[in-house]
This record gives sequence, C-alpha cells and structure tokens, in this order.
Amino acid sequence: MASKCRRLSGPIIRELLDSVESVLFDCDGVIWRGDEAVTGAADVINLLKKNGKRVFFLTNNSTKTRRMYVDKLRKLGFNASEEDVFGTAFCSAVYLKSEAKLNGKVYLIGSNAMKQELQNVGIPQVGVGPDPITGVQIDWANIPLDPEVKAVVVGFDEHFNYMKLNRALQYLSNPECLFVGTNTDTRLPLEGGKAVPGTGCLLKAVETAAQRQALVIGKPSKFMFDCVARQYGLDPAKTLMVGDRLDTDILLGSNCGLKTLLTLTGVSTAADAEAHRCSGCPLRLGMVPDYIVESIAELLPALQA
Amino acid sequence: MASKCRRLSGPIIRELLDSVESVLFDCDGVIWRGDEAVTGAADVINLLKKNGKRVFFLTNNSTKTRRMYVDKLRKLGFNASEEDVFGTAFCSAVYLKSEAKLNGKVYLIGSNAMKQELQNVGIPQVGVGPDPITGVQIDWANIPLDPEVKAVVVGFDEHFNYMKLNRALQYLSNPECLFVGTNTDTRLPLEGGKAVPGTGCLLKAVETAAQRQALVIGKPSKFMFDCVARQYGLDPAKTLMVGDRLDTDILLGSNCGLKTLLTLTGVSTAADAEAHRCSGCPLRLGMVPDYIVESIAELLPALQA
Repeated sequence: MASKCRRLSGPIIRELLDSVESVLFDCDGVIWRGDEAVTGAADVINLLKKNGKRVFFLTNNSTKTRRMYVDKLRKLGFNASEEDVFGTAFCSAVYLKSEAKLNGKVYLIGSNAMKQELQNVGIPQVGVGPDPITGVQIDWANIPLDPEVKAVVVGFDEHFNYMKLNRALQYLSNPECLFVGTNTDTRLPLEGGKAVPGTGCLLKAVETAAQRQALVIGKPSKFMFDCVARQYGLDPAKTLMVGDRLDTDILLGSNCGLKTLLTLTGVSTAADAEAHRCSGCPLRLGMVPDYIVESIAELLPALQA
Repeated sequence: MASKCRRLSGPIIRELLDSVESVLFDCDGVIWRGDEAVTGAADVINLLKKNGKRVFFLTNNSTKTRRMYVDKLRKLGFNASEEDVFGTAFCSAVYLKSEAKLNGKVYLIGSNAMKQELQNVGIPQVGVGPDPITGVQIDWANIPLDPEVKAVVVGFDEHFNYMKLNRALQYLSNPECLFVGTNTDTRLPLEGGKAVPGTGCLLKAVETAAQRQALVIGKPSKFMFDCVARQYGLDPAKTLMVGDRLDTDILLGSNCGLKTLLTLTGVSTAADAEAHRCSGCPLRLGMVPDYIVESIAELLPALQA
C-alpha cells in the first residue's frame, strides 16, 4: 500500500494524473469559496478536460439545481455542462425515481431547487415554503395529510420549523413512507470562520421525532458516486476524488475505492488528516487522503507542461 | 435482591407503602391523561398525604410553571401546593440560579412558562415567542448577539425554527456559554396513539449545530431528584418513584436508588419492562421497575383500610 497523506509535487502530480481517467471535484472550499473562484481552479478544470479527463462536480449542497450550478460555474470561468454536475437536489430526485421507483408525492422539507429537480423527473411535491404554526397539540397530531405522499425528503430549508417537523412525523408514522435525507453536514461554513446550521441538524430533528433513520444521499454515502459511475461507466481505480472535507469527500472516496486528494482551501486541515492517520482507529482511516495540496492550483504546472 | 416487575396486590401494597416516607409521581399518563384525571388518582394522592406520606410531582414537561400545575392539579381534585411540584421549567431555573450561579441572561428556546420561572429566580431571558426568518446565510452568521447572554436553554417551543437554531449556534460558538436542555423526550404522546414532536427533537437539532452536548435537567437525569431531595431531605431508600415511562421515570428511580413502580395508564407496557428484564443488558436493567400496577387506583384499598 502506498503511503498516505503525501504532499503532491512535480513528478508525482504527473504520475497521478496519468493514472486517472476521471476527476470528481467537490465545489465549495475546493473550486470556489462562496462566490469567488479559487485562484487557478478554472484553468485546472479546463485543462483537465483538454487533456481528455472526464470532470464531474459532486456537492452535498441541496439548494441548487444542476442548471443553477452550471450558471455559477460558467460565471466563474469553468467550462461545464449540466451533465457534469451531481448535487444532492438532483441525486435525491434520481434516487426516488430510479432506485425507489416512487409512485406518489414527496413531502419536502427543502428548497425550490429541490422542488425543481423533483419536477424534472416527474415527481410532485408538497411542503416547500413557509408553514406557520397554528393551533395546539391536538390539532398538530391530527393535521390533514395528503394521502398521495409516499416519501419524506429532508434537505436544507430555511423555513424549517416545528410545524414542518410535526408534518414529517405524521407522514413517517406510516412505516411504508420512505424517508430520505440529502446530507448530514452539521454546519455550512462561511468566510471568516463563521458557520450556520446545516441540513444535518434538521435531519437529526426529524429522525429523532420519527424514531427512524433516513437513507442519506450525499457524501460519504456511496449513492452519490454510484449516480455518476453508473451513468458514465467510471472505473473507481481510475477515478480521483478531490475535496476539502475528510468526513464527506475523502471518506466517500475511500468508501468507493477511489484515489483521494485533500485540498487545504476549505474546512479540513493537514493536521486533521494526520490525526486520523495516527489514530490507530480503523473507522478513521477512511478519512485519510492519499494526497494533499494547498490548493488545486498546484496541479497547474503538470497540466500546462 | 428482591424480584423485579412484581404485580402489586393486597399485602405487598401495604408493605411497600409502610416502607416509604415519600412518593414521587410523574403526571401525564400517571395521575392524569391529557385533561382528565386517572380514575381514583386524586383519592390515592389525597389519602397518601392523609397517611403522613410526603407527595411530590416530577414532570419533564417544560410548558407549565409550578403555579399552572397547581391550578390544574386542584381543578382535577388533587390536594397540592406549589412546593410539591417539580417541573423542568422550575428545575432549570433552580439549576441556573443555584448550581451554575449564572450571572447574565438566558437565550431561551422555550415557553412563556419557562420565562416566568426564570423571572421568579431573577434571571432575565431573550428569545421567547416567534422569530421569523429574514436575510440570507451571511446575515444569519452575523446576527446581532446580546453580549449579556451567558446560557442557552432549550425546552419545548412551538415557535422553534431555523432562525432560533441559528441564534443558539451563534451563542454556543462561545465555549463559555452554558448549554442546558429541559429534557430529551422525543415525542409528546396524545390520546389515541398519536404523538407530536417533543423537546428531544429540538435539543438534538441544537446539539448537532453546536457540536456540543447539553446538560439535561429532566428525568432520567439525577438533578431532578436532587432538586427535591436537597430541599426536603429525602432518603432515597424510603422514596417511591411512580411513573409510566421506563426510560425516564423508572430509570430516574434506578439512577437514584429509589423504589420504582410502573403504572400501565401511559406510555410503557408490562411487555416493555419484561423485555428489559430479560435482555441481559446491564444498561437496560435500570429500566426494569420493582413493581407494576394497571393503574395507581390499585393502591386505594390499602390506603382506605
């Protein structure tokens, strides 16, 4: 087994790139931070494509459609099309349509983007938008339910409140009702070390109320990779996962047998990776990347040569 | 060690009652169900007092003040005064004042009753009532904080929403900020097998966002018993805990060395108790009651004799 946590440099970069056919990139903290591209990232991605590599974008963020991602990518200078983008709004819709073969509506705790992706595969939803609290306990317990709802899906929803939590509980009291979560990220990190609550908090509240565990679509769940791999016939051994989070991006890579590269422009640090490597804990070894770079811009010289 | 899960009957009831000085009752599912007294319960409690037993009411419900409990108790025919009632709204205020010696305000996710109990011990709060979502991520991360807030307290709050979750996260990002939860009940059971989400769901969401564990006041946490025991000098060996939930009432009793009696007018069943007894799992043995009755009305003949 090759050593882990290797700092990438000149000849190893070329060797690594020669060994892969496809590269999967996380977005926030990897190719952009907020609304600004990471310096050099667009050149890296455009050159990878020019060099014949297939490039895909895998993000746990559930607040954008494929279309919205492509608009943002292009605005920031990335050469990309809708087919390259796998967000959890899109992948959740794919799961419900193709895997679960859902025949009914979704009760959606989520965004308009999720609603749109569901509509794109022909699945109707109820629930998006504000849902103010009214009445008292007995009213909440007897809240009218839509009999066509066959699944509860939880993604990021700034309108999340007690009423929505209660509706989800009432639907999920039917053991036949599917229960899907887009991702378990506990926080959305912002510039300056600040953060706001992530989908993982909302999902945990619903799971606690329903006394059931959701099927999770996002990284590190293998479904996210399967979604790309099946459509494009990816060979895991010839695929590189690039991300800024050890617990989602790198763990997904390990779970799926991919090569993994941690970039330090986002959440996790080299010290975090090293701590996992030295932990002696088998569960943590999956969060140790094969390689580390300060920024994906370090791939540029090898691509330009 | 005496056998467990004994069905109480004639002579054993008298023996048990003779062996205790104090009896602690959970409320919902034990002495009342919703807004109706359990048949015979008021007579049991009034006769216990007449027979010289000290009677206290211990409830995880955080939506009522001691005053409100006494009003309800009296309306349903129970002889009770404020000093007999230990709810988590009251006990949380006691904890913050006497144990944590809080010198500052509370950010309260909770009810007006909790606000009132805090005021009764001289602790100001902010946060009660609706808190509609406005702005976008960057606004949420930079939401103005009250510099006097030194604790976040989470109880039942029908106005719980993403904005409150976010405020709690921002306050709790300061590691000096105390973090208290009234209880971890996942559901509030209602008549007819229905239920609505309980405080445990809200607390789990906040714990997930804050990446911290709250100190929990309610049963099965020992603090709830200590609160009564310290004030009245209770001897655990001469105290009986009567409840309808194995995971809160009976476990509290076991944790504190009390005698325990499960009544079947509420959440847990005799089969649940038996399953714990036969599990061979040390963690579950604390949820096995010493005695079981169909209803506390079964105590009546021994008290009337």
